Amino acid sequence: MENGLTHTRHPGPDRCVFAVDGHAGTATVTRLAATPGVIDVLTAPGDQWLSARRVRPRTTRVDVGFGVEVGGDAFVVAAGPCAVESQAVLNDITSVVALGGASILRGGAFKPRSHPASFQGLGAEGLALLARQREITAIPVVTEVLDPRHVAAVAESADILQIGARNMHNFELLKEAGRSGRPVLLKRGLAATVDEWFGAAEYVLRTGNPHVILCERGIRTFEPATRFTLDLGAVAVAKRRGHLPVLVDPSHATGRRELVRPLALAAAAAGADGLLLDVHTAPETARCDGAQALTATDFDRLMADLRPLLRALGRPLASDTRVLAEGNPT
Amino acid sequence: MENGLTHTRHPGPDRCVFAVDGHAGTATVTRLAATPGVIDVLTAPGDQWLSARRVRPRTTRVDVGFGVEVGGDAFVVAAGPCAVESQAVLNDITSVVALGGASILRGGAFKPRSHPASFQGLGAEGLALLARQREITAIPVVTEVLDPRHVAAVAESADILQIGARNMHNFELLKEAGRSGRPVLLKRGLAATVDEWFGAAEYVLRTGNPHVILCERGIRTFEPATRFTLDLGAVAVAKRRGHLPVLVDPSHATGRRELVRPLALAAAAAGADGLLLDVHTAPETARCDGAQALTATDFDRLMADLRPLLRALGRPLASDTRVLAEGNPT
Amino acid sequence: MENGLTHTRHPGPDRCVFAVDGHAGTATVTRLAATPGVIDVLTAPGDQWLSARRVRPRTTRVDVGFGVEVGGDAFVVAAGPCAVESQAVLNDITSVVALGGASILRGGAFKPRSHPASFQGLGAEGLALLARQREITAIPVVTEVLDPRHVAAVAESADILQIGARNMHNFELLKEAGRSGRPVLLKRGLAATVDEWFGAAEYVLRTGNPHVILCERGIRTFEPATRFTLDLGAVAVAKRRGHLPVLVDPSHATGRRELVRPLALAAAAAGADGLLLDVHTAPETARCDGAQALTATDFDRLMADLRPLLRALGRPLASDTRVLAEGNPT
Amino acid sequence: MENGLTHTRHPGPDRCVFAVDGHAGTATVTRLAATPGVIDVLTAPGDQWLSARRVRPRTTRVDVGFGVEVGGDAFVVAAGPCAVESQAVLNDITSVVALGGASILRGGAFKPRSHPASFQGLGAEGLALLARQREITAIPVVTEVLDPRHVAAVAESADILQIGARNMHNFELLKEAGRSGRPVLLKRGLAATVDEWFGAAEYVLRTGNPHVILCERGIRTFEPATRFTLDLGAVAVAKRRGHLPVLVDPSHATGRRELVRPLALAAAAAGADGLLLDVHTAPETARCDGAQALTATDFDRLMADLRPLLRALGRPLASDTRVLAEGNPT
Repeated sequence: MENGLTHTRHPGPDRCVFAVDGHAGTATVTRLAATPGVIDVLTAPGDQWLSARRVRPRTTRVDVGFGVEVGGDAFVVAAGPCAVESQAVLNDITSVVALGGASILRGGAFKPRSHPASFQGLGAEGLALLARQREITAIPVVTEVLDPRHVAAVAESADILQIGARNMHNFELLKEAGRSGRPVLLKRGLAATVDEWFGAAEYVLRTGNPHVILCERGIRTFEPATRFTLDLGAVAVAKRRGHLPVLVDPSHATGRRELVRPLALAAAAAGADGLLLDVHTAPETARCDGAQALTATDFDRLMADLRPLLRALGRPLASDTRVLAEGNPT
Repeated sequence: MENGLTHTRHPGPDRCVFAVDGHAGTATVTRLAATPGVIDVLTAPGDQWLSARRVRPRTTRVDVGFGVEVGGDAFVVAAGPCAVESQAVLNDITSVVALGGASILRGGAFKPRSHPASFQGLGAEGLALLARQREITAIPVVTEVLDPRHVAAVAESADILQIGARNMHNFELLKEAGRSGRPVLLKRGLAATVDEWFGAAEYVLRTGNPHVILCERGIRTFEPATRFTLDLGAVAVAKRRGHLPVLVDPSHATGRRELVRPLALAAAAAGADGLLLDVHTAPETARCDGAQALTATDFDRLMADLRPLLRALGRPLASDTRVLAEGNPT
Repeated sequence: MENGLTHTRHPGPDRCVFAVDGHAGTATVTRLAATPGVIDVLTAPGDQWLSARRVRPRTTRVDVGFGVEVGGDAFVVAAGPCAVESQAVLNDITSVVALGGASILRGGAFKPRSHPASFQGLGAEGLALLARQREITAIPVVTEVLDPRHVAAVAESADILQIGARNMHNFELLKEAGRSGRPVLLKRGLAATVDEWFGAAEYVLRTGNPHVILCERGIRTFEPATRFTLDLGAVAVAKRRGHLPVLVDPSHATGRRELVRPLALAAAAAGADGLLLDVHTAPETARCDGAQALTATDFDRLMADLRPLLRALGRPLASDTRVLAEGNPT
Repeated sequence: MENGLTHTRHPGPDRCVFAVDGHAGTATVTRLAATPGVIDVLTAPGDQWLSARRVRPRTTRVDVGFGVEVGGDAFVVAAGPCAVESQAVLNDITSVVALGGASILRGGAFKPRSHPASFQGLGAEGLALLARQREITAIPVVTEVLDPRHVAAVAESADILQIGARNMHNFELLKEAGRSGRPVLLKRGLAATVDEWFGAAEYVLRTGNPHVILCERGIRTFEPATRFTLDLGAVAVAKRRGHLPVLVDPSHATGRRELVRPLALAAAAAGADGLLLDVHTAPETARCDGAQALTATDFDRLMADLRPLLRALGRPLASDTRVLAEGNPT
């Protein structure tokens, strides 16, 4: 482009957005706006953000595979163990969550731990277990990626690449994940402002990958009663400011099993597009974050409370729509 | 009492609690437990807290007058202007909120402002306006008290004494408010832990006044997208730890009108017993916090969304039960 | 004044400041500026703050009695027990701190405690002990006041009224303390911004009392390694923005004895005008915050390190100047 | 080792530490302690941390090349531009800082920026400029590495690998940096506790690389008057808890040039082993963080104030010792 301007192209269902970097003079803007096919030229600061709702007024629907969509009318539950431990345990947990109403299986193969002596996940073996589970159960899988050099391997085994809170500012990882073309679940950093969260999303979007899902998981504050402070205000802000779907992870936010249910319901009421939940069939033996994992009973109770709430909010549960779709042979 | 122990008596609907201060030896505890009529002697740290759910398993119902109860089955909405400005404006706003589904009128006569040049409220004149409004409309009134020397006057004009976030640690004020016998609405401090919030409640309870209502209104964090960060995790913790009813103030927490609705719904879903809302019929002219006040239309829309949500949660709206009760002549 | 403007008069050593509230038109400003004797009319937002350095370019020197000045060339140490416990203990501690280099005795008679069952201080009896100590030792005394109704009594026994962090937003107390005419030591609130801290100072200054001393004592953050996070950046900001002297309390900020010395030295290097230190001759028996109190040995070691540091900074220690002044008979 | 225990070996100047992972029974511990040559077996939680002062009582001296040591008796200043822009500008700045008293040149080639449209650094070209500068000036260079795949290239051009605050939890990067064998400057994360900071250091130390330098650069809090809140309490804690040298970066912490000097002096007084400073000869043209860069005059003034302060603290400035050593031909 002229005047040292550079641009990237971002196709979408209803319009194509061009992000132009550099300082364009008034003449250039006027000429661009007059170009046939150009609907609008947004110049105010912030407007260039590909995640802005002003750029795409409708919430982006991210197709995560196996007929599941995040950001559509239906509310999506992703559930599973914090860390993948063995095929047997993963099997048990998948049955519980899939039957209970989850549409996505979550499970960590690579775990970022504050101390090197803590359990770091099964790594490649964990990926293989997830891939096998996904094949058997026909359920999309989300798992975390920690290292740009692992992106290809993770993208092969999983349907959604999770960028953890501790890596939200790891821009090289964000770019590599974006380039994989896979949907990216971007957790908010422990001390990241909403503004920086959107900046991180932009790193992925600028690779040409529009499949970004945000996930609020609690921020660091002075309050010790919960592990982190779940910021549902940020969810409400994110839904207004951007067009990306937003999930909420009440398990990591609170770190306490008995607080997951009230905050999961609150997240739905605040306008979140879904949940990310820790579920374990034997939390007392879990190798990671057992205190926050819902048991099978807890999970069922939560889903039983969630369904009427979603009805009141005018939103079906994704797994219910899917069953209906499959159940309808015509 | 023996051994330098002192105690205070706290009667309740189903049992009477005695709070004993000092270090009692095992012999004393054993003997107290054996005393006829004594159900239990709780000694572990924290157990002596009069607010603990272990002490009173059922949520305290606070009768705030005019047939309104906070902490019962019904969900209570308190709404009104941030600051009382004039009889005419107060009249307008009261009509809107009372017809729309609020059971309590809120309005500030004394306003704590960070700078002395800001509008400080109408003071005694504001109290008189609130008192007149309450007489005309037969609606209980909650208003803030800032100074122990004003407690008597405020207690005469209002049904509930509000202790603001900036005064949560003002223990002399808490004690004076407690001694008035009026219900006390205790807002959480900007940087108060849940533990300290309960400590402040204890100051009121120890005066022998059991009518304490907690109110979460957002805490100070690094996030600038909202004025404060609403901590619904603290609401869930407070409901489990204590037996006091908990309200949520999404207006002050967010400081932005468009975020009040999602967070009000979230608060209900998280288990709050009610809401405290800023409503103004002409927010652009409000002398205080106009950016966060709901308009009449906003308020009606919120109530329209809140009712089905409460039904899903199995909780009626207080104003609806009251209308039913009044509407039933038999 | 015309146009509904109101003003207050604030005399000072070199100029008299008039704070005018209300919106003055350009004509009024021009006319005021042309009035004989008027040096300058400041109108930009913030300029009206009586604490602004733009209004008084030189640091305010607060005469706290007994020949001690805070905010002058000399660096001032205030030290003593967190809470006054008995005449004997207070005597011991006073000897240690007065001989060691403190110019002001600190000690709490009224203690704000998060839980009502904690030791609340000796109250009036504590005040009497402080008054006696001050008479015997000829040392100015600073003590906290919690209730507007106690201001007169405290002002009679003490030379400086301390407003604690938990009461920084207690504006009724600030006004009453200001009206006493006594110097006011204003601690920063646990979650107060520098802006709000200055707003609180303004409440005192607007009563016509210019003797305000600020005190940074740590803010609430996520870090649990120290009780609070000492914010020396705020000290540097406060010294640039305003003309009020600023002390630092490393004892309450850290809550750990072994961290007091490094942070006390850091405070001096950052430009603070003095320190507020917890010292106790038998910390293991202290009824309040024993873990943070310096022993006599700790205090002497700190002072031994502080003196050369102050020399390097070009600032004498206040107690040394005083001894010199007294020791010089000519 | 027996019982599934694993160990890593960490040689040091005075003793060799073996970190053993796994749960050793009492019998094993007793037998290990009785092994000839074993001085001590530390088992309490935390003791296994290779960074603990209990493990190495003396501060680790990190030789960063060109005769410069961090963590020794001398206080070390690292200074330079936030981002490397051109050879000419880098030349100018290096002259200023090297003549003024800095012993290490800092400069960013890869810049982590919150938004992808911001200047991201010159990358490989920036590395080449730094390497040339270091060759000409014979000054060690510190620069940030963002991606595990860049570690080898950065290790070739720089003497110290900087891990930025946003990557403190990027454990794959930490491990790769550790394996390079180069000294690693580990900045504290924006919301990392001291505990997590030490956990991150452990990731590097466990690769067998003992050359870790910590750097405090401010944490996220509610206070907007400074960009971050410099936590000198954490510096004092880190110096007591661990044996690693600790630097302080007052430039990034405050984000405001006029606050750098007071906080730099405070850091030295708090016990830091050195400083990391942004210096730019033409800050108004800087492509990154110009508002916080010291000018040549600012830098000289800071050094002029720092020298007497260091003398009072009993610590020479590293560049002065070096000049003396070089200046002494015998």
